[in-house]
Amino acid sequence: MSAEWQPVRQSRTHELVLERIEERVLAGELKAGDRLPPERELAPVLGVSRSALREALRVLETIGVLVSQPGRGPDAGARVVRNPDDALGRLLRLHFALGSYSLGDVLEARVVLERSSFATAAAHASAEDLDEAEALLVRMQEPDVGVTDFNDLDTRFHVAMARGSGNQLTSTLTSAVRESVRPLILQALEAAEDWPATTAALNKEHTELLRLVRAGKGAEAADLVEKHIRGFHGTLVDENAPDDRSEDADR
Amino acid sequence: MSAEWQPVRQSRTHELVLERIEERVLAGELKAGDRLPPERELAPVLGVSRSALREALRVLETIGVLVSQPGRGPDAGARVVRNPDDALGRLLRLHFALGSYSLGDVLEARVVLERSSFATAAAHASAEDLDEAEALLVRMQEPDVGVTDFNDLDTRFHVAMARGSGNQLTSTLTSAVRESVRPLILQALEAAEDWPATTAALNKEHTELLRLVRAGKGAEAADLVEKHIRGFHGTLVDENAPDDRSEDADR
Repeated sequence: MSAEWQPVRQSRTHELVLERIEERVLAGELKAGDRLPPERELAPVLGVSRSALREALRVLETIGVLVSQPGRGPDAGARVVRNPDDALGRLLRLHFALGSYSLGDVLEARVVLERSSFATAAAHASAEDLDEAEALLVRMQEPDVGVTDFNDLDTRFHVAMARGSGNQLTSTLTSAVRESVRPLILQALEAAEDWPATTAALNKEHTELLRLVRAGKGAEAADLVEKHIRGFHGTLVDENAPDDRSEDADR
Repeated sequence: MSAEWQPVRQSRTHELVLERIEERVLAGELKAGDRLPPERELAPVLGVSRSALREALRVLETIGVLVSQPGRGPDAGARVVRNPDDALGRLLRLHFALGSYSLGDVLEARVVLERSSFATAAAHASAEDLDEAEALLVRMQEPDVGVTDFNDLDTRFHVAMARGSGNQLTSTLTSAVRESVRPLILQALEAAEDWPATTAALNKEHTELLRLVRAGKGAEAADLVEKHIRGFHGTLVDENAPDDRSEDADR
């Protein structure tokens, strides 16, 4: 009788549904492109209410594993996809705002991921990836480019190079980690005293980065992208940084 | 009249609720530890049905931003937390199963993240982090440790070193990236012909890794952890790898 009492785990219906669908994905029985049965058919098969089923489907939509079928009514059946980028971006953005990580943590993670991306891209990037990066660079150099457009193109340039490394996971993480501090980056760009000079300086580095990658100079590209990230990222300020960061608010 | 028609974006109610709550988090108005009003109060304030509100709350629970209050009835109001690790692990696990990334992508991402963690931990780890890693190592060396326990302790050892680097984001990513291939790691451990020899070899490397970190030898620790990861991870096989990986099933 000395064994401790364990609390009963209160699984809620939508979690059980979520687990059931996840098991099928993990077993390879549900693949990208497959369609789930319509809600009105699936709910009775699983023995759950349609609202519990819908809660589970919403979660899977939000993490980029399902899309519902717009325009075909609520009973068309969701489709399995693999679209992790937005989901991961949202997750890291919210957790950054809540203080799960600091601005310094984000900076160092970017440096680590992008050093690797640029070094590998220099060895492996396809002509298509490099041409895409070049086209983005041309648009970033247009004289009337605004802050939001510049930032979007800038992000896409870095993500294109990560994709050029051939690593989809690193590319997804690069995009999401950058997305997590997007509001701060926009703030810093908007606060730039001399916008044309700021973009000119950033684009000079982008141009040199692309040249190094095209020339296969991975080590030099890695060093320059670290300098590039630290240079700009170092000017960011997190005014909303929670002051209770060290407290344990997780449980 | 040459402008192209753009499709109308069909925002669904739960997405609007999600955005409303996210805005508050991003603006710093909702912080970790804060409590949302009970569903029956919040739904009419937002002008939405309780089921739409609940769908949004489920999503936020799943990405580790909210916990509901078990044992206090459905009207107690969820609490804001920061618990990204499980959410990120689930997300990467599902997307790995769907073929969003390959086993090779996961291997290279682990090498990049953990080289950085070990190098930084050698300079910054607290005595507490190192003692935790040591205690995990002692448990991994117990003669009757089973496959699942060994793998859990092994993961916790690597995550403890990532936390020792002081970077919460890298630590979260290390944990999630490893979690994404957990079934394959378990399979490989179960298939080990000589279990005591396998654990002895892994633990010899763990012991040496900890020694290097304690001695402040970051560069050597980084090289050894790369060898350690490539050595074991290189034996993993993804039998369920989708053969349509190159197709675009995302849209």
